[in-house]
Amino acid sequence: MLEELKEKVCRANLDLVKHGLVIFTWGNVSAIDRKSGLVVIKPSGVSYDNMKPEDMVVVDLDGNIVEGGLRPSSDTPTHLVLYRAFPNIGGVVHTHSTYATAWAQAGRDLPNIGTTHADYFHDDIPCTRNMSREEVFGEYEKETGNVIVECFKRINPDDTPAVLVKNHGPFTWGTDADNAVHNAVVLEQVAKMAFISSTVAASYNMDVWFGRLGKGPKMNKLLIEKHYSRKHGPNAYYGQKNK
Amino acid sequence: MLEELKEKVCRANLDLVKHGLVIFTWGNVSAIDRKSGLVVIKPSGVSYDNMKPEDMVVVDLDGNIVEGGLRPSSDTPTHLVLYRAFPNIGGVVHTHSTYATAWAQAGRDLPNIGTTHADYFHDDIPCTRNMSREEVFGEYEKETGNVIVECFKRINPDDTPAVLVKNHGPFTWGTDADNAVHNAVVLEQVAKMAFISSTVAASYNMDVWFGRLGKGPKMNKLLIEKHYSRKHGPNAYYGQKNK
Amino acid sequence: MLEELKEKVCRANLDLVKHGLVIFTWGNVSAIDRKSGLVVIKPSGVSYDNMKPEDMVVVDLDGNIVEGGLRPSSDTPTHLVLYRAFPNIGGVVHTHSTYATAWAQAGRDLPNIGTTHADYFHDDIPCTRNMSREEVFGEYEKETGNVIVECFKRINPDDTPAVLVKNHGPFTWGTDADNAVHNAVVLEQVAKMAFISSTVAASYNMDVWFGRLGKGPKMNKLLIEKHYSRKHGPNAYYGQKNK
Amino acid sequence: MLEELKEKVCRANLDLVKHGLVIFTWGNVSAIDRKSGLVVIKPSGVSYDNMKPEDMVVVDLDGNIVEGGLRPSSDTPTHLVLYRAFPNIGGVVHTHSTYATAWAQAGRDLPNIGTTHADYFHDDIPCTRNMSREEVFGEYEKETGNVIVECFKRINPDDTPAVLVKNHGPFTWGTDADNAVHNAVVLEQVAKMAFISSTVAASYNMDVWFGRLGKGPKMNKLLIEKHYSRKHGPNAYYGQKNK
Repeated sequence: MLEELKEKVCRANLDLVKHGLVIFTWGNVSAIDRKSGLVVIKPSGVSYDNMKPEDMVVVDLDGNIVEGGLRPSSDTPTHLVLYRAFPNIGGVVHTHSTYATAWAQAGRDLPNIGTTHADYFHDDIPCTRNMSREEVFGEYEKETGNVIVECFKRINPDDTPAVLVKNHGPFTWGTDADNAVHNAVVLEQVAKMAFISSTVAASYNMDVWFGRLGKGPKMNKLLIEKHYSRKHGPNAYYGQKNK
Repeated sequence: MLEELKEKVCRANLDLVKHGLVIFTWGNVSAIDRKSGLVVIKPSGVSYDNMKPEDMVVVDLDGNIVEGGLRPSSDTPTHLVLYRAFPNIGGVVHTHSTYATAWAQAGRDLPNIGTTHADYFHDDIPCTRNMSREEVFGEYEKETGNVIVECFKRINPDDTPAVLVKNHGPFTWGTDADNAVHNAVVLEQVAKMAFISSTVAASYNMDVWFGRLGKGPKMNKLLIEKHYSRKHGPNAYYGQKNK
Repeated sequence: MLEELKEKVCRANLDLVKHGLVIFTWGNVSAIDRKSGLVVIKPSGVSYDNMKPEDMVVVDLDGNIVEGGLRPSSDTPTHLVLYRAFPNIGGVVHTHSTYATAWAQAGRDLPNIGTTHADYFHDDIPCTRNMSREEVFGEYEKETGNVIVECFKRINPDDTPAVLVKNHGPFTWGTDADNAVHNAVVLEQVAKMAFISSTVAASYNMDVWFGRLGKGPKMNKLLIEKHYSRKHGPNAYYGQKNK
Repeated sequence: MLEELKEKVCRANLDLVKHGLVIFTWGNVSAIDRKSGLVVIKPSGVSYDNMKPEDMVVVDLDGNIVEGGLRPSSDTPTHLVLYRAFPNIGGVVHTHSTYATAWAQAGRDLPNIGTTHADYFHDDIPCTRNMSREEVFGEYEKETGNVIVECFKRINPDDTPAVLVKNHGPFTWGTDADNAVHNAVVLEQVAKMAFISSTVAASYNMDVWFGRLGKGPKMNKLLIEKHYSRKHGPNAYYGQKNK
């Protein structure tokens, strides 16, 4: 049943490891067969080392297990909410990738401040709101899906296929499992660059502020002339002659 | 004597290298055989390159060497205090892993600000207090164990199996040596993410503060439309046709 | 046609991957044959995995395709502006490398604060100005080249062979494709070091500021004597005897 | 002549690459034969890829080339000043390693804030003063040695075998070439950890400051109970049953 999709989903899960997005059993990929309405997803808490296509679990959109001897990922209900709410998506990925998770822990939207971001995600990547006691101690994983969907009332999920779940981590999606993994890789990269950009900007602003006191990083201008001319120009003496 | 445990402890020490938690001879793993009350631990200052199970040292809970031709790790007395104080633990790990050590050097508890942390550690990872002159120049390694135990008067060490020794580095523990190593890997990862989260939050707060002066990182909104439409939609011209 | 140059350009593109400057299809290298005025450039959106010299596209300085079955990189018009404006350069590289892109996103010139920078780049690496609506929705890639050239009215492009395009990423150039890649690697390294330097300086300045309240990172001085003497000197007991 | 020492120096240079401390031809290692007063050092600007022991250059303590067909490293005069001033050292290393260089660019002493530092370096790693016009445009590399030696009037170079040359990068030394390389690796690691510690401390202090406005990173406490109990305790449902 859905053997080809199981193979794709299994390989997409292993790609998370290859791209450095997950350690241990953290993270999961699923894909949907829109014709049958069946979803193939990674089993829960199983090591990536020996994961095989036949370990994948098949569930319907209500979460009933249709095929598979293992429990599906504990995050399955979140995936299902996304498949029901976003009709154009074919794959969903959840990771605890370092930089995207760090933004989620900071509780901040990931700002769209560069073309790398804009090439893949039209808007800022939204961070979900705090979940209530009822949501956390009720159907937690399903409610996690609901707070995600809430964010996309004013954002098109096809144009911005990613979200940060507050104090938790990112979910991405795409046209299929591979595309969702691709988006997870891009999200991690833009999260890393936005971290550096924000820190650079804050340091610069502080530097301006403290700079009046002459305390920012300063170059000895003499070293520029010395080092540049040591390697370049008529009197260069770095390296070997006639090289 | 305890050959199986020596093999486990030796492999667990090598796993520290594999996971990037130690360089040179920094770090050590031990495990206890609760029946006999004997502890197997890495020898002191020995290179990981040629470490063999038979190099492991066996000591009793008072620190007497029971078997082994090499000196045990200089941190052995710390391990022994933990085995005596925390009756459910089977393995102990000490590293100078980059991010966890950096938090220890900053003298800060590692805050529980995400589910990655909460999946493994119930509370903030406590940072020990400053040690006194008597403690440092007395039985230093034993006293290091004592200041760790002090932190767990109000925290359950089974639910939060890690500590940061101030200006030094992390200790983790677990049901056995492998589990303690697993916790050391997770600790390093959550320490890294908490560093990024804290910096992102601080940068954001500064950005808000300086932003009134228009100095935070800002996007040219026109680039979003241009770049997104260059790759997506009817007029996309990035990549090859029919691809 | 220009088979040798195609081989060099192809290999230079693959070197971007080897040096960790690009992921997926991000980034492109070109080189010019000054005699014929023809430029060899990477095709657009093609995976690096199977890229071959014969996939390279040959264009003239007006952007007409002279040879090649694939579309040239969408950034081709930017490369051509640089070849026309900077007569001594032989190769151009564009990447979204992490740290250089982060500075571009922060909208800051990369300051020349060390001899590593001064060994290769005489001046600060300039960050371009914001592009106007007419520039972005007109001949965008050509105008990107024009705002780069604008920056080099007062800077010698041969002495400072790099630029940061605001909210986008870096371009570097050099005497040939290999030299331009070399400069891209150096730029990424100096961007990383300048990020760390700026953050260290800002943290230090804050530390001074908050330090009056005793909140900066502080060492327990006793640990210095203890740890140094534990490993060194007459009473050292770390490691094995006679080792 | 000194064939054994050439082999050691050549291998020590290659170790810099292995430990990730240098890219391209940045960095150099030398060693001294105290009996003859001769120094073996890496040639200038030669690629590490094909470096062989016979490429090493032999110079005397005045800088005269005694053997070797290539120019010695342009930093040779700095090495020689150190050998003359510090009689117990046997090897010297210069790199532009990322974190140590970043501290040098920030112009800050690297503070001794942890036992990893104290295990190898007794004091803060000093950062040299600004060099004057006469020093920079006179015998620059020799004067670089002199400003280093100036720092060690009140510090024992055997106890603290490292320095940061302002706006340039680190030098380390040791009992022989290997020990100097070992110290260069440790310096880079403690520079990285001190960067993170300083940033964590500054972020924390800002968090306290802004926290009064409730803007620091905050956990939804409900998630702690949920996630911890989802994986641990009687009602855990993460992973597979009986696992």
